[in-house]
Amino acid sequence: MAPYQADITSRRIVLPVPYLVFLGDARSEAELKTAFGLRDWASENCLGQHRMESYVPDIGLPDMSFSAAHQAGARSLLIGLATDGGKLPEHWWPCLREAVNSGLSIVSGMHDSLDSVPGLSDLAKTKGCSLIDIRHWQPTLTVGTGQRRPGKRLLTVGTDCAIGKKYTALAITRAMKARAQAATFRATGQTGIMLAGSGVPIDSIISDFVSGAAEALSPANAADHWDIIEGQGALCHPAYAAVSLGLLHGSQPDRIVVCHQHGRKTLDGFPDYPVPSLAEAIEINLTMAKLTNPQVSCAGISLNTSAMAPRDRQDLLDLTSEQHGVPCFDPMISSLDALLDFIL
Amino acid sequence: MAPYQADITSRRIVLPVPYLVFLGDARSEAELKTAFGLRDWASENCLGQHRMESYVPDIGLPDMSFSAAHQAGARSLLIGLATDGGKLPEHWWPCLREAVNSGLSIVSGMHDSLDSVPGLSDLAKTKGCSLIDIRHWQPTLTVGTGQRRPGKRLLTVGTDCAIGKKYTALAITRAMKARAQAATFRATGQTGIMLAGSGVPIDSIISDFVSGAAEALSPANAADHWDIIEGQGALCHPAYAAVSLGLLHGSQPDRIVVCHQHGRKTLDGFPDYPVPSLAEAIEINLTMAKLTNPQVSCAGISLNTSAMAPRDRQDLLDLTSEQHGVPCFDPMISSLDALLDFIL
Repeated sequence: MAPYQADITSRRIVLPVPYLVFLGDARSEAELKTAFGLRDWASENCLGQHRMESYVPDIGLPDMSFSAAHQAGARSLLIGLATDGGKLPEHWWPCLREAVNSGLSIVSGMHDSLDSVPGLSDLAKTKGCSLIDIRHWQPTLTVGTGQRRPGKRLLTVGTDCAIGKKYTALAITRAMKARAQAATFRATGQTGIMLAGSGVPIDSIISDFVSGAAEALSPANAADHWDIIEGQGALCHPAYAAVSLGLLHGSQPDRIVVCHQHGRKTLDGFPDYPVPSLAEAIEINLTMAKLTNPQVSCAGISLNTSAMAPRDRQDLLDLTSEQHGVPCFDPMISSLDALLDFIL
Repeated sequence: MAPYQADITSRRIVLPVPYLVFLGDARSEAELKTAFGLRDWASENCLGQHRMESYVPDIGLPDMSFSAAHQAGARSLLIGLATDGGKLPEHWWPCLREAVNSGLSIVSGMHDSLDSVPGLSDLAKTKGCSLIDIRHWQPTLTVGTGQRRPGKRLLTVGTDCAIGKKYTALAITRAMKARAQAATFRATGQTGIMLAGSGVPIDSIISDFVSGAAEALSPANAADHWDIIEGQGALCHPAYAAVSLGLLHGSQPDRIVVCHQHGRKTLDGFPDYPVPSLAEAIEINLTMAKLTNPQVSCAGISLNTSAMAPRDRQDLLDLTSEQHGVPCFDPMISSLDALLDFIL
């Protein structure tokens, strides 16, 4: 594990921004999902891009060498692509060493630890740089307290994994800021942490400390400030419900927004498990959330309608909204005005 | 972390038995809770005791030197006492080295890692012994599959932590065996693992893998075999519910037994949180458990009645049984016959 824990409490990852985004030798845009996510949701954190070869697809930022990026103010090289099995390929090693030699810290979401690159750890010590493996990070561990804290919090939850919880939280945060509402996106997964520049990789935490980590992620704040917390897993999921429940209890959300994909019948990768209905998901999440915040309520439904014909989408959104008595939107096609009018 | 993972799948801790129980320089019986638990529940795993001083209270086993114990067949020195903050005091170090030098592995539930004892790790390598830190152990990590498996499983759950879940599971296992019913106690905490000689420290597992670890703990078995699984945490607990839910989902219990302490008003250490009623605890546990086993039901209530006058205890047990329609017993005073008649 990398030693970097810049947050004063050591209970959240805080990344050195701005980034130079490393695109490596990616051969397709699909490999660059993380980099495109950065461009779309955190362009203010991205100073430039670095490609190992000219054929690599780009994300529209200026190409920069490591030393030029450092001189321009970049503080870390962020690995913006995914490889098979999360490996750090051997032919990247000289590049990573050169980046550190130029004074850049490195931020990685790979399974391979940055310490596994020969010589990199010693070089980083010499240069005063950090090697930050988001997947391997553990916060200073504290158990949940259950104590209420000021500030308002909204958590996105889902009827399944990989169903739009991060995207929805980002969209809500952006919409709130556009209305000059004080709001902070709180990241719980590696991509979200790269976008936000800080956060807690909640599913990598020792299980006893999940709700405590969630409390640390969204600490006490001004009474009218909103933390918009990225959900993880799903409460009706046979593999990942434990993470979801710890996050729910520690977040103490005032509001939940439930994310659902129209037409998904069974849980992704779990064909024996039906996706719960929206009504079931709302009820079970509110039932469990009331333990730490009895005032919790459902503020809206984020519905992925990409599986249906465009002309039918709005009808379904309207119908779903009517059925559940809360705003329903598809963040890819809808304004979030109704949701914000309902919440604020 | 110690390298010892003798189980063929590396998904459970398996300890080298029998033990020589280390009583150190304990000054009171209270410090020896673990050792007394071993004597009461796993005497077949304990060959002898080792005291550093003659004034140390004993657990009634033969006093043995390390070499004599090894010659008599002992395979590990098990640290049977608790210290402040889980420290391994410096004046124990020579003892621990001597034990390894005599061929004994060491089993510890302390927070301090055995590797932190100078020279011990190298000595263990030389002697072919293992250093097993139960609290630091991580299994080969796999996520839950949710797939049903043969065999019958009973999980003890609770209205709070520290309420008798381990004791109840041990008592049920012992009672089943007394009836010649095939049954295995499955340990999920450090003391339970020492008693059973194997298990998974479920609250030390990375949160994403809790339900997978619970599946590995109670694998497929003969159709009429019962795994009696030690519960952890509580589903209505603001700090520990995540662990409880992952264990519940992965265990896929056919039956739950709910443990409760008569008279406890608020959660231990959480004065703002009321202890849920038995009806609430039964309902929420069954609701969540149905995800991975729709046939789950409540088989009984284990009630700690030590806070009430002896003459009133049986009336309360009878009344509680009547109210909930399941056997109710206090494992310190009751026979478990009614429970077993109800289950088997």
